[in-house]
Amino acid sequence: MSAGRLVIMHPRDPCFEEVVRECFHLQGAMTALDATLTVVTPGRCEIALPFSQRVTQQYGLFHGGIISALADCAGGCAALSLAPADTKVLTVEYKVNFLAPARGDTIVATGRVLKSGRTLSVCQLDVDVIANGVATPCAVGQQTIMSISSRSA
Amino acid sequence: MSAGRLVIMHPRDPCFEEVVRECFHLQGAMTALDATLTVVTPGRCEIALPFSQRVTQQYGLFHGGIISALADCAGGCAALSLAPADTKVLTVEYKVNFLAPARGDTIVATGRVLKSGRTLSVCQLDVDVIANGVATPCAVGQQTIMSISSRSA
Amino acid sequence: MSAGRLVIMHPRDPCFEEVVRECFHLQGAMTALDATLTVVTPGRCEIALPFSQRVTQQYGLFHGGIISALADCAGGCAALSLAPADTKVLTVEYKVNFLAPARGDTIVATGRVLKSGRTLSVCQLDVDVIANGVATPCAVGQQTIMSISSRSA
Amino acid sequence: MSAGRLVIMHPRDPCFEEVVRECFHLQGAMTALDATLTVVTPGRCEIALPFSQRVTQQYGLFHGGIISALADCAGGCAALSLAPADTKVLTVEYKVNFLAPARGDTIVATGRVLKSGRTLSVCQLDVDVIANGVATPCAVGQQTIMSISSRSA
Repeated sequence: MSAGRLVIMHPRDPCFEEVVRECFHLQGAMTALDATLTVVTPGRCEIALPFSQRVTQQYGLFHGGIISALADCAGGCAALSLAPADTKVLTVEYKVNFLAPARGDTIVATGRVLKSGRTLSVCQLDVDVIANGVATPCAVGQQTIMSISSRSA
Repeated sequence: MSAGRLVIMHPRDPCFEEVVRECFHLQGAMTALDATLTVVTPGRCEIALPFSQRVTQQYGLFHGGIISALADCAGGCAALSLAPADTKVLTVEYKVNFLAPARGDTIVATGRVLKSGRTLSVCQLDVDVIANGVATPCAVGQQTIMSISSRSA
Repeated sequence: MSAGRLVIMHPRDPCFEEVVRECFHLQGAMTALDATLTVVTPGRCEIALPFSQRVTQQYGLFHGGIISALADCAGGCAALSLAPADTKVLTVEYKVNFLAPARGDTIVATGRVLKSGRTLSVCQLDVDVIANGVATPCAVGQQTIMSISSRSA
Repeated sequence: MSAGRLVIMHPRDPCFEEVVRECFHLQGAMTALDATLTVVTPGRCEIALPFSQRVTQQYGLFHGGIISALADCAGGCAALSLAPADTKVLTVEYKVNFLAPARGDTIVATGRVLKSGRTLSVCQLDVDVIANGVATPCAVGQQTIMSISSRSA
């Protein structure tokens, strides 16, 4: 899917926003990092993370592992926003390329669903670092998510 | 490189262990997660992370993003252990596949250098989850690391 | 980098199109597959491949390995289009997700440079399958390319 | 899964070798490239490809796209070797890192199953280039395969 194309996504669960927000808040790692789920729309979610000593690498910038954890979570939320009710989503795999040093006061990870299948979804992951109000892309990724119906489990 | 082959790696910096340990301790994210650098050998490093609420996903298991952050860090340490003195290492990209739910009391991430080049290194990443003393593979990854000489910078 | 953002790319070598076309034509694999380099613009190249028995998988559709070979080549051409004169480009790594069965008469792979660095570039890869004049996304990828100056070699 | 560990794999279909060989021979791309399925064991398959003008990149070495096509196919065969009867396997995604220039007379791609699940399998991919009887690792990869029962389709 050309990542630049406009794709209209329709939620299968009318309560999708509530479901995604609850899933996010159950993630202890996101709470501990002080991450905020800032946008929940069908097929697209954003998570913001402020800079702190808790998220740094050896040169005092945002840690690549934390950047990718945020991206992973944003993609999972995006996939969940399009899932039917009573569905669990699990990351099958993901890959991240780092584009620039993440120097700034906040990072924002965006997950967007490129394909929403019955079993597997594919998400595009983008992370920007914000410094003095200016956003710079710092990482880009691709992710596979598996959906499992809680009813059949 | 066949991942199963034995490859003897020689450090270029005799102080490699000290360099790797210092780099690890400068990473605020690793400290905040309560991670420990348990093994530093030439071309192979291990990091352990105990379970806590700080590292969970929505079902109370280890978070995939945290698992991959640990794997990323283990690979970076492994690449650094083979670098010449005064070299910085940066993750170019990495990819993780999840193999099993990470249910246990500790995860251990191992980074191993498959190829150590002048500019780029490739690492194999393996993460086990330990429950009741039994290790189960829970993630596997591949990583590209870039080396930059601090002298030329 | 948000893949949906418009990025204006400037070629460093005024003869970039000629350089890219020559590089493409030197690739025996592309000739053998009957691939055509259809678009060469700064930071964006397209390659088309008609269906034939030579490119099928076990169910008679386009083979995933051939789809990714085309994507790899499109990304390499895109990176080369932005490189200084006398530069070699080599694929460091790439990753492809398949989105839909590639049933059709032609596939078109597009490589777009997301980041063009001195040593490393990152490309977005998109492959569409064309059936009865309708394009359907069938694969998406991410790629790291290394640039090496021929002069210094 | 630690890629270095010994894992004994048991086939679910006693006719696995016949099934894998038939699947391989139905792939027009493998025939056109002159590839040979040299090893079929439960969870591990090897494919060899002789050098020819048909498989070259711009400097006359084996093309990275062809190397990865071979690796993709070897992983798919390995996953199929462990599948129940009447199962289709499809590549969900894969990633390849290149380790060395592929200069030689033959490349050999090995696919090994790291995890064989009901729906998804994960494979390790290794490609060696053989020159004057000496094998050198030239690429390493990771792959996700989906299994679909033909009976339920």
